[in-house]
Amino acid sequence: MRIGIIGAGQLGRMLALAGYPLGLRFTFLDPSADACGTQVGDSIVGAYDDPQQLQALANCVDVISFEFENVPVDTLTNIAKRKPLFPPVNALATSQDRLLEKNLFRTLGIATPEFKAVDSLTDLHAAVSSLGLPGILKTRRLGYDGRGQYRLRTVKDIEAAWQALGGVPLIYEAFVPFTREVSMIGVRSSKGETAFYPLTENTHQNGVLHLSSAPFKNTTLQTQAERYLKKLFKQFNYVGVLTVEFFVLGGQLIANEMAPRVHNSGHWTIEGSETSQFENHLRAICGLPLGSTALRGHVAMLNFVGHIPTSNAALQQNGVHFHDYGKQARAGRKLGHATVVAGTPKARDLAVKKMLKLLPKTKSKATS
Amino acid sequence: MRIGIIGAGQLGRMLALAGYPLGLRFTFLDPSADACGTQVGDSIVGAYDDPQQLQALANCVDVISFEFENVPVDTLTNIAKRKPLFPPVNALATSQDRLLEKNLFRTLGIATPEFKAVDSLTDLHAAVSSLGLPGILKTRRLGYDGRGQYRLRTVKDIEAAWQALGGVPLIYEAFVPFTREVSMIGVRSSKGETAFYPLTENTHQNGVLHLSSAPFKNTTLQTQAERYLKKLFKQFNYVGVLTVEFFVLGGQLIANEMAPRVHNSGHWTIEGSETSQFENHLRAICGLPLGSTALRGHVAMLNFVGHIPTSNAALQQNGVHFHDYGKQARAGRKLGHATVVAGTPKARDLAVKKMLKLLPKTKSKATS
Repeated sequence: MRIGIIGAGQLGRMLALAGYPLGLRFTFLDPSADACGTQVGDSIVGAYDDPQQLQALANCVDVISFEFENVPVDTLTNIAKRKPLFPPVNALATSQDRLLEKNLFRTLGIATPEFKAVDSLTDLHAAVSSLGLPGILKTRRLGYDGRGQYRLRTVKDIEAAWQALGGVPLIYEAFVPFTREVSMIGVRSSKGETAFYPLTENTHQNGVLHLSSAPFKNTTLQTQAERYLKKLFKQFNYVGVLTVEFFVLGGQLIANEMAPRVHNSGHWTIEGSETSQFENHLRAICGLPLGSTALRGHVAMLNFVGHIPTSNAALQQNGVHFHDYGKQARAGRKLGHATVVAGTPKARDLAVKKMLKLLPKTKSKATS
Repeated sequence: MRIGIIGAGQLGRMLALAGYPLGLRFTFLDPSADACGTQVGDSIVGAYDDPQQLQALANCVDVISFEFENVPVDTLTNIAKRKPLFPPVNALATSQDRLLEKNLFRTLGIATPEFKAVDSLTDLHAAVSSLGLPGILKTRRLGYDGRGQYRLRTVKDIEAAWQALGGVPLIYEAFVPFTREVSMIGVRSSKGETAFYPLTENTHQNGVLHLSSAPFKNTTLQTQAERYLKKLFKQFNYVGVLTVEFFVLGGQLIANEMAPRVHNSGHWTIEGSETSQFENHLRAICGLPLGSTALRGHVAMLNFVGHIPTSNAALQQNGVHFHDYGKQARAGRKLGHATVVAGTPKARDLAVKKMLKLLPKTKSKATS
């Protein structure tokens, strides 16, 4: 069976590496001939919205998936008529628009920050009056890793925020004074089977995921998160891995956003669980039985953003599993990650301290 | 860093899959354009002894290794002058000739079955007289998976054995009435660091590995096996993974043969140990620190030879890690394997019973 993957970044690359042992084969579609996924599979070089190249992809594969959220929905809708395409296009469409996404969360009874659509400066003034300050103005579309966002602290920020982002559809969200950020990764197969990983606690730096650790043990929140994902699975007749990022506030989960794909906060599952998120995504879209999401210990994953240590330096740290995506270094670019799996939370946290030494000195920060 | 691998079978394929996370890239040399390794890396199609293609491989890589033992030593010796080539050619040369190999075992004080070189029918009569019956006549070169062997039970078999194998250099070995077969996989890096996996117990069917389980816990034999491998490491100034297969008889190890490469009896290390034999081989030949060989539990690996279950059937078995090498099925061909990792030997053995149900009914046999 051959899988077509739209996008050939590190997510596509790790999907292929997880799929080869199952006897699967891979063809990527990516505008860049040297995207890091192309190192590990066949590829078609073309724009995500090039109907001819999408058709070429559909022609040579059995199932299509995507590793990148900003694929134009119209072209996907067309291609989904030719070959099975998972996750469903309507889930992607919802995740591409923060307003649709938050409206859906609200409709399904999934707690989410207060929000207002903003299409004009007048709207923004009204939204700030209604929801108060601080708050965050965000573009409805094409934002990720903290891009397309403006934090408003006082009414004086309104004008500047509008200057920075105005002109495209926006959303104003009340700031959530969260105590933690966590994510839930779940998977539903085309046969309707579901599985969930334990909640992962995440810390960010400059809007980009920095460190994830699992399990974040809280039975109440685990149950709540799984219930929320089940609602989304049902809504979309979902197939594949689905990730929802939550704020934790007052012992409750507040959904921030969803990603209809494997997720950076789940990279620890490669070594840290019985079956990785990548393998389970492939099992799901191929209609295969899902694999156990049981943990192998207490796990942490550190992202390498803009800088990656040499493999020699990384592997000096006993117990570190090193992942170099084979990308050219560039400021702000996700270049790799490292994972540690330990027997206890204490041993894990000690290993994290050592792992943090792999970051460039000027940028390393305490994360607690 | 780009690794050149001579041979693109399942061993090369699994080496590449283990190496991509380290940021390594791979080019295979194989006479077959559809060898299963070529699915996961770049490849050059050419004979193993084609100097031009070997040169082309050397030109485009930083380090060369091989996954196949019957590569002509002369061509390797030449190519090793151009690029670092590990394991060392002299280890390969020794492993290619059962007489050289057993002479070396004897020289190093590594217990091995009694043996005699046989180059004529007269030699064979003399060998049988000297070492007794039963015994096994083997070709000195090009034998693997039980091929090129003839079991002699009575003097009447001498003529037939000579008819079957005579004409090439042979070796007659006294039969060892072993109680078990085990293998030891060790690794030495180009920096001189060494690491050893626990002894693995192996059962064969028709001369081909059928089932491996680890750890085979016996501190005395583990120490003895590590001591033997260290002697071989020293002898060859060895770099890479080295495997030695032993008979167990009367509480002692008797070396049967060595393989200067990753080995089928170590496939369980992918899920069953902290660092797989494939990753450690690559770390070793790249001069990187070796990874922990600690176990993740009690492990068993079942080979799929000539027949492979569908991934759907294999993955129905909870806890099974499935490896389909992406090869066309053919009688006697190694097509894939499955691994289980359990918390106790008892749970492992239960899982093995279930796993054996994946074999075709007519061929499944009890293994104890």
